[in-house]
Amino acid sequence: MSKPGEAGLKALADYLAADMQACNQVIVDRMQSSVALIPQLAAHLVAAGGKRLRPLLTLASARLCGYNNQDGRMRHVEIAACVEFIHTATLLHDDVVDDSQLRRGLASANAIFGNKASVLVGDFLFARSFQILTADASLDVMAILSAASATLAEGEVMQMTTQNDLSTSVEQYLQVIYGKTAALFAAACESGAIIGDVTPAEREALRVYGANLGMAFQLVDDALDYSADQAVLGKEVGDDFKEGKVTLPVLAAYEAGSEQDRVFWRRVIEECEQQPEDLDAALALIAQTNAIGVTLAKAEEYATLARQALQGFPDNELKTLLLETASYSASRAS
Amino acid sequence: MSKPGEAGLKALADYLAADMQACNQVIVDRMQSSVALIPQLAAHLVAAGGKRLRPLLTLASARLCGYNNQDGRMRHVEIAACVEFIHTATLLHDDVVDDSQLRRGLASANAIFGNKASVLVGDFLFARSFQILTADASLDVMAILSAASATLAEGEVMQMTTQNDLSTSVEQYLQVIYGKTAALFAAACESGAIIGDVTPAEREALRVYGANLGMAFQLVDDALDYSADQAVLGKEVGDDFKEGKVTLPVLAAYEAGSEQDRVFWRRVIEECEQQPEDLDAALALIAQTNAIGVTLAKAEEYATLARQALQGFPDNELKTLLLETASYSASRAS
Repeated sequence: MSKPGEAGLKALADYLAADMQACNQVIVDRMQSSVALIPQLAAHLVAAGGKRLRPLLTLASARLCGYNNQDGRMRHVEIAACVEFIHTATLLHDDVVDDSQLRRGLASANAIFGNKASVLVGDFLFARSFQILTADASLDVMAILSAASATLAEGEVMQMTTQNDLSTSVEQYLQVIYGKTAALFAAACESGAIIGDVTPAEREALRVYGANLGMAFQLVDDALDYSADQAVLGKEVGDDFKEGKVTLPVLAAYEAGSEQDRVFWRRVIEECEQQPEDLDAALALIAQTNAIGVTLAKAEEYATLARQALQGFPDNELKTLLLETASYSASRAS
Repeated sequence: MSKPGEAGLKALADYLAADMQACNQVIVDRMQSSVALIPQLAAHLVAAGGKRLRPLLTLASARLCGYNNQDGRMRHVEIAACVEFIHTATLLHDDVVDDSQLRRGLASANAIFGNKASVLVGDFLFARSFQILTADASLDVMAILSAASATLAEGEVMQMTTQNDLSTSVEQYLQVIYGKTAALFAAACESGAIIGDVTPAEREALRVYGANLGMAFQLVDDALDYSADQAVLGKEVGDDFKEGKVTLPVLAAYEAGSEQDRVFWRRVIEECEQQPEDLDAALALIAQTNAIGVTLAKAEEYATLARQALQGFPDNELKTLLLETASYSASRAS
């Protein structure tokens, strides 16, 4: 089952199939531990089969920048696995703090293994990623990924403090999604670029590509929470709504709404006083105010910036696939 | 309010007062973030004022190994702050997974700020520590602290899987406390040694000192849970008992107990079926079987190994203080 617009991603994954397979092998190998529960829990997430978008970006960036295993190593694959470990750690922790029951259409790790194991295995994966990065020995890559990890936590905390607060500005919302999503996309691309033989400008171009792709990706994710069905979404529909998360669809509907609409939004988002029929009412207001359209237009802006960032690279099949990935990232909800 | 036997630690902290003050400043400076809740929550733990034992060990090891800021830097202080950040991150996560209400005699961070913030700020501190280590640029120190962080998570997971299981062997219990406590003590000492100008044998000696000190320290902690009062302990008395943690006092009492005693232990620890009067009954059985004595004797064995590890270092005031710290670590419960 694939979401609309995932064809671009799939083509990129197909093009890098050998690298992705090597990356999956490193992921499986490096989540091993003498404590059996750790690989058991980690395997549950791996089996749930995410898109592996972030490691794919690292692999693609490294290859676009000419990394060709000329050092006799598989640095792109090792670093890509670290990026996925960091992402997986945050998913495990997110599901605990949000008490989520579903992840990627399957029962979440915390629902099966408990909160305690999920928190600790997240910590393990995070520590393991820095062990692998230390062995890789690039201080630049470590600086980028440790900074992105800190920014990620900051973004999540900021999201928490804006929750249930309709006075959140669009700018603050964009800061939150930069932190919780785009920063790691940017780091995934930039760390791939570093191990290729590129100029600082090319490295920066890939960072900008990743950051804007991540913004588009999260905006669409936030739109999908009010427009997709559960099978497509792979998580509970209306999760953001139930938690009172202040995302762009809500901010746009609130902004464009009547005083009566705003009374509704304040009750359901700020007070979190929700009745079963409120989600349908929210969806109706969102449709009425074209709030999904506003959100997707914003996503398209970022996707355009992502595509523009690659202008300086010579045309080739990989560049084309990265450009298509940016286009698809913004269109997968429409 | 100090625990019995903390005089040794206090003398060490006094001797290194300037370094400790510099370390506290780095801790405060580096937990800053534009997201206000992060330093607020972190400051709560800092204000609660732990012993700062682990960073103290890093500072002491660096100085014992001749680190004298000859590089014009304050590497010992930076690395010590990282060690404390890693430790603090695990405390935050532990309190969430254990749902603890008290930490160091004050309300725990999760009790005040909620689980979500505690998990995320733990993640932030962990990421921040690797940012600082990356700037310090010693791959050896990074390898040691990332490996210790992974071992720490493994130890916590292993503790979780042995919980409520009286068939846990003493050896497995010792593995758990090595992972959850001694590994970071060892890493704190070894990373301090690295930045001094020492032989591999001296570096290894400090690693062994730290590992054995950590074992002694955790054994005494586990004894205190059945022998101290709440004011001394700084946490709820009988916490380990209530959670069904399988620690040496319990294993020793179970091992030496009658069949009737074992029925009791299986009910309260394995089934976790506890009545209010059961803690007193457990304390009586522990006294009867000298289980605290067994635990403290084991702690003394490790403290002796810790002292022996320092034999090769020339005698000086700092060495004397580290030897006393080892002695006090094993005696603070008696």
